[in-house]
Amino acid sequence: MRSELISVRDLPTDRATVFSSEHGDGNGLEDLFDADCFARYAALAVDRLADHLADQSIRGLALTDPALILAAATELTQGGTPDNPELHAQKFAEIIDLYARTGIQVYSPGYMGRQFSGPFPVTAVVDLVSAVLTQPASFYEAGQLPNVVERIMGGELNRFLGFPADQFAMVTTSGGSLANLTALLAARNRRYPEAWAKGLAGSGLRPAIAVSDDVHYSITRAAGILGIGEEHIVRLPVDNGRRIAAGEVRGALDAAAARGLDVFCLVASAGSTSVGAIDPFDALADIAAERGLWLHADGAHGASLLVSDRLRSRLGGLERVDSLTWDAHKTMFVPAACTMLFYRERTASLMAFQQEASYVFEKTADIYTAFDAAEKNFECTKRPMIMSLWVPWALYGSAPFAEKLELLCDLTEETHAILTHAPDFVPLHRPDTNILCFRYLPPEPLDDDALGRLQCEIRTRIRARGEFFISKVDLDGHAALRVVFMNHRITPEHIHLLLNEIRAVAHAIREEQPHHKELPQ
Amino acid sequence: MRSELISVRDLPTDRATVFSSEHGDGNGLEDLFDADCFARYAALAVDRLADHLADQSIRGLALTDPALILAAATELTQGGTPDNPELHAQKFAEIIDLYARTGIQVYSPGYMGRQFSGPFPVTAVVDLVSAVLTQPASFYEAGQLPNVVERIMGGELNRFLGFPADQFAMVTTSGGSLANLTALLAARNRRYPEAWAKGLAGSGLRPAIAVSDDVHYSITRAAGILGIGEEHIVRLPVDNGRRIAAGEVRGALDAAAARGLDVFCLVASAGSTSVGAIDPFDALADIAAERGLWLHADGAHGASLLVSDRLRSRLGGLERVDSLTWDAHKTMFVPAACTMLFYRERTASLMAFQQEASYVFEKTADIYTAFDAAEKNFECTKRPMIMSLWVPWALYGSAPFAEKLELLCDLTEETHAILTHAPDFVPLHRPDTNILCFRYLPPEPLDDDALGRLQCEIRTRIRARGEFFISKVDLDGHAALRVVFMNHRITPEHIHLLLNEIRAVAHAIREEQPHHKELPQ
Repeated sequence: MRSELISVRDLPTDRATVFSSEHGDGNGLEDLFDADCFARYAALAVDRLADHLADQSIRGLALTDPALILAAATELTQGGTPDNPELHAQKFAEIIDLYARTGIQVYSPGYMGRQFSGPFPVTAVVDLVSAVLTQPASFYEAGQLPNVVERIMGGELNRFLGFPADQFAMVTTSGGSLANLTALLAARNRRYPEAWAKGLAGSGLRPAIAVSDDVHYSITRAAGILGIGEEHIVRLPVDNGRRIAAGEVRGALDAAAARGLDVFCLVASAGSTSVGAIDPFDALADIAAERGLWLHADGAHGASLLVSDRLRSRLGGLERVDSLTWDAHKTMFVPAACTMLFYRERTASLMAFQQEASYVFEKTADIYTAFDAAEKNFECTKRPMIMSLWVPWALYGSAPFAEKLELLCDLTEETHAILTHAPDFVPLHRPDTNILCFRYLPPEPLDDDALGRLQCEIRTRIRARGEFFISKVDLDGHAALRVVFMNHRITPEHIHLLLNEIRAVAHAIREEQPHHKELPQ
Repeated sequence: MRSELISVRDLPTDRATVFSSEHGDGNGLEDLFDADCFARYAALAVDRLADHLADQSIRGLALTDPALILAAATELTQGGTPDNPELHAQKFAEIIDLYARTGIQVYSPGYMGRQFSGPFPVTAVVDLVSAVLTQPASFYEAGQLPNVVERIMGGELNRFLGFPADQFAMVTTSGGSLANLTALLAARNRRYPEAWAKGLAGSGLRPAIAVSDDVHYSITRAAGILGIGEEHIVRLPVDNGRRIAAGEVRGALDAAAARGLDVFCLVASAGSTSVGAIDPFDALADIAAERGLWLHADGAHGASLLVSDRLRSRLGGLERVDSLTWDAHKTMFVPAACTMLFYRERTASLMAFQQEASYVFEKTADIYTAFDAAEKNFECTKRPMIMSLWVPWALYGSAPFAEKLELLCDLTEETHAILTHAPDFVPLHRPDTNILCFRYLPPEPLDDDALGRLQCEIRTRIRARGEFFISKVDLDGHAALRVVFMNHRITPEHIHLLLNEIRAVAHAIREEQPHHKELPQ
């Protein structure tokens, strides 16, 4: 019996034939590793993925009870056997269909909810190539082209960033959280040269990190990991655009010093996760220079704006930071993870990790080991992730990246204008990037708490209806709705459809619960 | 002018036609994101990758001057433009060919050098599917199937591992280094409950970690990162099989305590990186229980032996550790990274990270958030890596994994026998897994230092000749040759070919430098 979630299209006859057992020669492992086997799986997947990409209908997420998916996936897990190609084809097709159907529909204009997106299709094919070729990229020997390409892409992007061309360094790593951790580690080790070898315990130090109140959770997490302590995070107030209030930073730092804290690092966002705000880097760089602080920019989301001539000025001062996290898998539209960590000074890039292992690190430098990345990145085995960014860059140039970002940022501003003019909505900030937070305002006045609960309920019901996918965020303790535009196929017409969907949902809630008393906390 | 490294096959006419500009409708971005575009790139790549997979010739690595690759890649980087499909096809083909040609040839029987391998081809196709579908897997909402599948695969593999079925937990993360760091963080936080919030500085603590002298560098690195300090690594002596000498552990721990160190964690290897040794887990678990230590197993390389009925007993006692790192991208033959971190107790899995962020962590638990992984793994955006392991498991069952591991371990034992009987070679240990270290012995006696330098020179020349790819490792301060068998196509005949290649190279060295005086240090 097939569980109800497995109800896929039948395989066309020709495809089933291709997978028929006459193609296997009963040679066990060899059949599963051979080139024909690869080509057959690839043909099956590409056909289905192309259909998926071609579907432009408006849809969000088919949120499903985990118990149902668990039942379907458990059934698929059973009965595997190495020598039944027809079964392999059937199961693989069912898996792809189940996988696609239960995902957030990122290629649909109904998807407006998160910071990931359907990548440039060529980059997904690059992932396939990289998976087959198997070149872990921490060492030149194991990935000659990826290591060289890292250097090239560092230079290409630094033309926009503006670090000193002969001094900067760039290293790829597995995600923005790891890049942020690595940068904070370098900063910690620069300030406390003995921390790496001797540890922090017993040092008598009181290291602390100053961050925006809206900083990403990976930064406060890093404080917990690095032995600094989450309580030694100094939170800097934000202004009404939710950017660090530069005028209040010196006072906050003085207050921290008065409490005996040694703030060694200041972290600001180039596109905060909650609202996409870009902190005032020029003013912050002045303060960092004045106080001898390492200034780290978490540009995971917004650093890509550098690539656009029209948007670049929004990131003024970014060339003055000590380190910058930049996720190509967010707003450069390549598969996750593809994160770059830039350092203004190459010497700083060597401060994060300090050691050797004979089977990996060669003691004698040569022309090959000069390209090794492993002393600068956390991973020993690292995906050659830069290839997914370099290939579209080499094929298309920078123009499509800039064009897409401009379209998305323009759409966000237009949405802000639409919300401003709508009597039943209120935008909560001017957008700096492609993220916008807002609230629906019901006809009857509600206190902040009830209004926040209403937004949560709206978001949950919108998700459940499956046409649109948006997110929610807490701002100053109360929930708001949040859109992130990652798909260039979204038009203002889709925004109007979304707002009407929200109105319809809110109306239904009001009908059911006139006093909003029963909304979940 | 094309640089010399770009000298690829011409594109067949039909392929060039498929990419002709008549297929683009001049619609800018849309052309680069559409389904047909995807299908064309995929067809081009699959064709070339199938040829690559079918090539069974004996070859290692075409190690190339980085300057040459830099010139070729720089040329490919230039001239990108969004609206020239013929150029895109031509460049993409050139890139794939350059990428394949300059990599370690992992599908060839000449490849015997590292711990990565050509994956099951279906798993590379899964990577393609995952890249297109875009489902970051830290949150159920964003990756329903991957999150459910993590639970299923945890259960499937735990049947072999033997943690209490109703208490264990498993989380995937981006590589063995990150899994090791996460486990040590959980251990640190269990022993020092205030470390996360208050930090280690000023605590007066003297935390320390006891490890095998052969432990992977990510463990000592973790001590530097976590604020424990590399100097607070207590190194445990190894026996002549390079396994932790269990009889000497209590003494080493007592000596550490006498120096004022508080050892809270003991790290052992299930397959050490240097020689593949499996530490004596039963004896170590006794000691850990006695002393209240967290016992972590770095099974990145060798945990997979659990899947084989014949090999499982080599890992006796592994069911008693507190945590286990297991890289499926090593000896389960799937693309990197696919790392699993197992905890014997689910409560322990929640100790590594401790916090909230409103836009990601839902305050109100529901049936969906119960499947979220983000509180247990480091990443915010995480690849749905488990899919690459689950798909072959669901299609083929566990048998091909076990069969391949048995073949590789048998071959390693046979190689040990061959080396034992060869008068001019000496194996340096009995293999516990699929890794074997040995030295070539020249006719004239050499001191340890000169003998080590000879091995290095042999390894470098073998690599340069391009037929075989092996690695080297330092054991007790002197270099040795090292083979890692990851390819089931390697036969004893290939071993004999390798040994003859080593003899020929050594002979050439002797002819040039009769006294080995000029070998590089």
